[in-house]
Amino acid sequence: MYHLTVRDHIMIAHSFTSPTFGPAQALHGATYVVDVTLHRETLDDDDLVVDIGAASATLSAVLAEFNLSNLDDNPTLAGHNTTTEFMAGEIFRRMKQAIAAGRLGAGAAGLCRMRVQLSESHIAWAGYEAAL
Amino acid sequence: MYHLTVRDHIMIAHSFTSPTFGPAQALHGATYVVDVTLHRETLDDDDLVVDIGAASATLSAVLAEFNLSNLDDNPTLAGHNTTTEFMAGEIFRRMKQAIAAGRLGAGAAGLCRMRVQLSESHIAWAGYEAAL
Amino acid sequence: MYHLTVRDHIMIAHSFTSPTFGPAQALHGATYVVDVTLHRETLDDDDLVVDIGAASATLSAVLAEFNLSNLDDNPTLAGHNTTTEFMAGEIFRRMKQAIAAGRLGAGAAGLCRMRVQLSESHIAWAGYEAAL
Amino acid sequence: MYHLTVRDHIMIAHSFTSPTFGPAQALHGATYVVDVTLHRETLDDDDLVVDIGAASATLSAVLAEFNLSNLDDNPTLAGHNTTTEFMAGEIFRRMKQAIAAGRLGAGAAGLCRMRVQLSESHIAWAGYEAAL
Amino acid sequence: MYHLTVRDHIMIAHSFTSPTFGPAQALHGATYVVDVTLHRETLDDDDLVVDIGAASATLSAVLAEFNLSNLDDNPTLAGHNTTTEFMAGEIFRRMKQAIAAGRLGAGAAGLCRMRVQLSESHIAWAGYEAAL
Amino acid sequence: MYHLTVRDHIMIAHSFTSPTFGPAQALHGATYVVDVTLHRETLDDDDLVVDIGAASATLSAVLAEFNLSNLDDNPTLAGHNTTTEFMAGEIFRRMKQAIAAGRLGAGAAGLCRMRVQLSESHIAWAGYEAAL
Repeated sequence: MYHLTVRDHIMIAHSFTSPTFGPAQALHGATYVVDVTLHRETLDDDDLVVDIGAASATLSAVLAEFNLSNLDDNPTLAGHNTTTEFMAGEIFRRMKQAIAAGRLGAGAAGLCRMRVQLSESHIAWAGYEAAL
Repeated sequence: MYHLTVRDHIMIAHSFTSPTFGPAQALHGATYVVDVTLHRETLDDDDLVVDIGAASATLSAVLAEFNLSNLDDNPTLAGHNTTTEFMAGEIFRRMKQAIAAGRLGAGAAGLCRMRVQLSESHIAWAGYEAAL
Repeated sequence: MYHLTVRDHIMIAHSFTSPTFGPAQALHGATYVVDVTLHRETLDDDDLVVDIGAASATLSAVLAEFNLSNLDDNPTLAGHNTTTEFMAGEIFRRMKQAIAAGRLGAGAAGLCRMRVQLSESHIAWAGYEAAL
Repeated sequence: MYHLTVRDHIMIAHSFTSPTFGPAQALHGATYVVDVTLHRETLDDDDLVVDIGAASATLSAVLAEFNLSNLDDNPTLAGHNTTTEFMAGEIFRRMKQAIAAGRLGAGAAGLCRMRVQLSESHIAWAGYEAAL
Repeated sequence: MYHLTVRDHIMIAHSFTSPTFGPAQALHGATYVVDVTLHRETLDDDDLVVDIGAASATLSAVLAEFNLSNLDDNPTLAGHNTTTEFMAGEIFRRMKQAIAAGRLGAGAAGLCRMRVQLSESHIAWAGYEAAL
Repeated sequence: MYHLTVRDHIMIAHSFTSPTFGPAQALHGATYVVDVTLHRETLDDDDLVVDIGAASATLSAVLAEFNLSNLDDNPTLAGHNTTTEFMAGEIFRRMKQAIAAGRLGAGAAGLCRMRVQLSESHIAWAGYEAAL
């Protein structure tokens, strides 16, 4: 199995709504360094998992919905705590839609698995991984 | 599959008892940067894999047995070379016991897999991973 | 010249108030990984720049004012854009006061210089450095 | 499952031959930081996945074929674009041959899986992973 | 003294022409992760060292001359070994010209010092630093 | 001012002898990732600060005195707590002697400054820097 990872980041504000979160219930924020890993059994005719430029541009476009915003104001996230792991799932679902829509090119049909990881600090990160 | 990782570290002394280890048979030491990754198919009601504060506190408590000690003096490790990979397995087993004892909360019943990685330098790391 | 660095982090929300900031004028947030470096010409009687435990605890106490908060609501920062570089200066000033108040012990009188660096992502960081 | 990783690097020149690569069709180069991860269900009698010295030396020997060279001139790579993911596969195959030839010692018969990852920058990496 | 750093990277081919370089006399290549640090005694009216977007864009424009090329073919570098430290100096000089030309805005007149660092691998980096 | 850094590491055991160190008075250990930075006003005829191969080999030779040992048994360190900052100074002094002895070549006469940094974990590092 081959894999390719591209990295980008977002800077967001948010708050949490459960006593579990203690002081993190207050409005605060985070930088999420976002790593998206794409898996493929065999390489394409150009010896690629997928065009890295297309992968980076698509990730940047997906992240634009969240970057420099307050996640509490995003209606598509309503009713959820926008934890690092939850946001990894949301970014996974949006990347999956973008791939299905052909944003990574026809060759992306060969992709079989994707992993999204968000690092929130030097001591904590979370992610979501599933088949495509 | 969702995953969450917390990082901590220990500083230990030890020696090895086999010619395989060459000069590392002498008493020396290591900093192990310890990453524990917890896996779960779905998030809990708070959109969490597990409470990150509880995960960090439990890891710190598990590591306290080893931190700032000479592993050669720990009777529970007797008869083994305390290699990086072996210690990853030991920390895995102690974390698994702590989870079973409810130290990460009731929600931790949803955890299905754990990975423990110990980085011993900028050029070498090892770990142990298994189902929970 | 000897130096010692300790690392911690904060997660904050904020907004900016100048067209220079473009889309970052909206409420968003950041993780700042904070490195404080203390300089000293000679080591103390224990062969230390300063007690690392005291340095870490003092940094954590200084950061508590900002961690998990919205910097826009902090009256001591009013009238300023809480940029990465500005916040480095603010943390420098608070650490300097803590040192002057004896929080790092009597030996800290030997400290001659301090550097505070805040990393906001994997591609940008800023800081403030001055004599003590 | 236990795992052990060793890190090394190579510095190579190459060019690509497809319009997909845009300006990267020109002769350029890369540093690849190479991580090889070896997996094993149980540890050997010395509590090791494999002797780390042997693993590092074998990786260095495998990389010597490519280090400080122009990959365009390597006949074993002819007809391929030497992308990061393709080179990960090539290094995997050479490491697998070296293991089969006994270069990691008799104990390496217990290895069941290997992962090779090449980091080309702070924002992109790729790899190949398969059973042994 | 305040400072701000932005990071980018280039991927280049080159060769060296002196027996000092041993096997590195052959055509090979490198990824250089490039960090540019700008120093300023006081912040501007927006609480900035300089606009980070302008700094990043200017660095990217300066690096475009070298990225995805063979440095042996660049006439402005002729007669030199394009070592990591030499290239840091070249990038410093080009960034200095861009600043003098107003590319970082009028506020950049307050900049007093710049440091350029190029990391060629996980075990080696070099740079050039001087007053502006 | 140009600078060049090479990285290596050592794994040591030691204990401390002062109540200041609390539980670290017990025998424990550390991995020190060691970065040596050499400064020079102008480059040599090969466009180098110094031959990087010679710098790496010299650092490795200096570190061999300490690597895989118990620092408590080293008579040249007797009477001192072998803290991270103290060891940085010791490595500085040994590297300075090696340079004076010509181990980095005749060109090293141009070196004017050196910085030694030891990272003991992902959250703490220390060093010593002085003119040569």
